Amino acid sequence: MVLELKIPEGTSWAVVKPLCPIFLSYLFSFAFVAIYWANHHHLMHTLKRINAGVIWANIHLLFWLSLVPFFTGWMGVNNFDRVPVASYGGLLCLCGIAFTILSYTIRKGYTHETELTRALAKGNTKGMISLVLYGCSIPLGLYVHPAISAVLFVAVSIMWIIPSKDIERALQKDEPHE
Amino acid sequence: MVLELKIPEGTSWAVVKPLCPIFLSYLFSFAFVAIYWANHHHLMHTLKRINAGVIWANIHLLFWLSLVPFFTGWMGVNNFDRVPVASYGGLLCLCGIAFTILSYTIRKGYTHETELTRALAKGNTKGMISLVLYGCSIPLGLYVHPAISAVLFVAVSIMWIIPSKDIERALQKDEPHE
Amino acid sequence: MVLELKIPEGTSWAVVKPLCPIFLSYLFSFAFVAIYWANHHHLMHTLKRINAGVIWANIHLLFWLSLVPFFTGWMGVNNFDRVPVASYGGLLCLCGIAFTILSYTIRKGYTHETELTRALAKGNTKGMISLVLYGCSIPLGLYVHPAISAVLFVAVSIMWIIPSKDIERALQKDEPHE
Amino acid sequence: MVLELKIPEGTSWAVVKPLCPIFLSYLFSFAFVAIYWANHHHLMHTLKRINAGVIWANIHLLFWLSLVPFFTGWMGVNNFDRVPVASYGGLLCLCGIAFTILSYTIRKGYTHETELTRALAKGNTKGMISLVLYGCSIPLGLYVHPAISAVLFVAVSIMWIIPSKDIERALQKDEPHE
Repeated sequence: MVLELKIPEGTSWAVVKPLCPIFLSYLFSFAFVAIYWANHHHLMHTLKRINAGVIWANIHLLFWLSLVPFFTGWMGVNNFDRVPVASYGGLLCLCGIAFTILSYTIRKGYTHETELTRALAKGNTKGMISLVLYGCSIPLGLYVHPAISAVLFVAVSIMWIIPSKDIERALQKDEPHE
Repeated sequence: MVLELKIPEGTSWAVVKPLCPIFLSYLFSFAFVAIYWANHHHLMHTLKRINAGVIWANIHLLFWLSLVPFFTGWMGVNNFDRVPVASYGGLLCLCGIAFTILSYTIRKGYTHETELTRALAKGNTKGMISLVLYGCSIPLGLYVHPAISAVLFVAVSIMWIIPSKDIERALQKDEPHE
Repeated sequence: MVLELKIPEGTSWAVVKPLCPIFLSYLFSFAFVAIYWANHHHLMHTLKRINAGVIWANIHLLFWLSLVPFFTGWMGVNNFDRVPVASYGGLLCLCGIAFTILSYTIRKGYTHETELTRALAKGNTKGMISLVLYGCSIPLGLYVHPAISAVLFVAVSIMWIIPSKDIERALQKDEPHE
Repeated sequence: MVLELKIPEGTSWAVVKPLCPIFLSYLFSFAFVAIYWANHHHLMHTLKRINAGVIWANIHLLFWLSLVPFFTGWMGVNNFDRVPVASYGGLLCLCGIAFTILSYTIRKGYTHETELTRALAKGNTKGMISLVLYGCSIPLGLYVHPAISAVLFVAVSIMWIIPSKDIERALQKDEPHE
């Protein structure tokens, strides 16, 4: 992810001011992708063997995440207008679905239940709640007020800032000699 | 691969509409490169030791793949006109040849036949069929109709969406204790 | 990091001259990020097990470092004016704080004191001195002269060009059979 | 490395023609960086333990290589004029010096002579010849004819297309059980 800010000539506030929304949307994209990255890192550590399903689930997630900077920017440039905010909610929904599919594909690879699969299943519940909240943000943003959607986006992000402690613990127990 | 869409000011359909062909060609490039990536990943896992031949076969493939976004974009911007569609067919042909060379270079490194070399040889047959179809897409796109080429592109992509199960199986047998 | 210089048509000095400040700021960004990278590499080698704290400390550092090329460029384009120089000092301060947090997060993971934790603590002292110097560069650049800030930037960089020999030595002792 | 070609609207030769020099210089940069990459890959495999010297020698090489696309493009846009060709020769010289320093830094890490250090020393002789040829390309390009420099660039590249077989062989002998 790259900050694509044209370097302005001049140092006055009038020159710097128009860059603020672009900078803010960079900050939001960065934070959002970072939360995914941190959780993704934990998820991938639970994986024993890569197969075609996991590769495709990963590519699918990457595709939607690669659209985040554009949609965040579109929202920022248009002052958090109804249409871009609702579109952003839709994109986050698709990212969330892709993450859920990836998590499911990995869990399917385990033939019997372990502490790790239980930790993954628990993460899945959190994923389902996120999807419902993202889903609600689309009509609420379009027909009620975009600020409600923004609150939902932040709420879901907070839920995921700390990657699953259960997965961390389960990993340490399953492979204590690594 | 980066989506290079200028963030539009405004949220009306008139503002968003001109972005659609660029977005579509991003989607196509992404899918095409992802299919290569998934198959490439499987191919590289069959490799025991890197040597100069494999490095160069890899760089050669990478070169043609790096041109995919430009040619897909050119096709999209010009509404799938004859010349860009045929050029795209030519590029896919070159990507396919580079993949075949890489596969051959890896297979050459095995001194005796194993299940793995048989799986690689089987993948090679699929590669040859792809090359013939890509090759046909050039004159068909130029002199008959670009839509025929588009059908051939999609057909070959579908052939490769699922990376070789034979390689997966052969790898699991050859190194069961990994 | 990418050098974003438009390739000029023409080879005369008049054509090349306006590129010099952009080129210079590329050189400075590159050197600054490289110094972080080299020290970061050593720091990460002291890490036994990745956890959520380390991932987030890393992402936090990455965020501030990703802003370095923009702020260096802004300083270069405006001939090292007061405001951009002081802003740059502020950014370096934030990078330094992020590095200190990362170092602290890693050290916290060790339950008892070893040669390695002592080496890390020593690096921390150097970090504190850097933070004080960067902090001073902000008011000095704004109210006295930007050249003083520039001297402070170079001074801190020199302090860090050679990554911690103590960490290197401690790592070799702790894991002699690796 | 990214091909930065603006996607042209239209498919006529008049539209495509101005892209040719940019495309050609992309091809040259790609080939040149690939040759370095292949040789660098072999060189890094001879390394037992990373230290600060190797990290800095690496960053130094990376800096000059990162300038190759710009200088190749400058040469292409200006039809291989004297000044850009000679500048390119100077840049290649700096890349070569950086590669020699990296190779020397790695060799210094070996306390006694092995087949590997002999292979590295042999690669060094090839490096010295390259530096002399690159050095000659600067005055020859400026004062005689840029075509002579171009011949020298191609000649040196051919020398390096096949990465050191000696290093490959020495690596296989030194660590036969890897």
